[in-house]
Amino acid sequence: MKIILLADDFVKFYYESVDTDPVRLAHLYCDSSMLTYENEKEPFYGKDAIIKKLCDQRLAFQRVAHVRNTITAQPANGGALILVTGTVMFDEERPVNYVQTFQLLPDGQGNVFVLNDIFKLIFG
Amino acid sequence: MKIILLADDFVKFYYESVDTDPVRLAHLYCDSSMLTYENEKEPFYGKDAIIKKLCDQRLAFQRVAHVRNTITAQPANGGALILVTGTVMFDEERPVNYVQTFQLLPDGQGNVFVLNDIFKLIFG
Repeated sequence: MKIILLADDFVKFYYESVDTDPVRLAHLYCDSSMLTYENEKEPFYGKDAIIKKLCDQRLAFQRVAHVRNTITAQPANGGALILVTGTVMFDEERPVNYVQTFQLLPDGQGNVFVLNDIFKLIFG
Repeated sequence: MKIILLADDFVKFYYESVDTDPVRLAHLYCDSSMLTYENEKEPFYGKDAIIKKLCDQRLAFQRVAHVRNTITAQPANGGALILVTGTVMFDEERPVNYVQTFQLLPDGQGNVFVLNDIFKLIFG
């Protein structure tokens, strides 16, 4: 139950922020965090590179709107593994299915950080 | 590089087995493993419950065929977090998009086991 609440709160905050001002997510990433965005071969490593990528991605459009369809979470290593499915609209284009998986881990100070973050668009 | 090889080998073996004889996957799950299948609220916990679910799911059809489109992996907790996207065909029905995420962890004996496994179909 705690895992579900953690996952729901995190996911809500994540997409509100990533659609408006991704800098608000900075405190959730640290030096060991990784983000693989779409078909890029190598992950972005560390908070600075990840937040820059999320900001660049946001600023490439006038408007980005994620709509979550499902959130599934399991406990993992003292944190949670989360799988989100939904649709995302870039500007006024047709919504595209996406999937994103996160691993949240305890930071040792009562909060969590994102260790793993993988985002994929699903076409067709 | 090692993570990518591990992920590729695991994913190939996983889908070959799940489409034919899921019992072959038994050594990859242990008592702490979890599988959330589609929209079921609660995960299946532990090797026996997971392998039973995979077998029941397989036996519900004459033929099940997963085709992987993308495999993305990141290192995580000494193992790997893997996100697979693809299509799955149940009997002769139209292929449906699916996504599956796995967390593989070292078992302390030079092999890996599946801690987390979440499978979702993506409609529309």
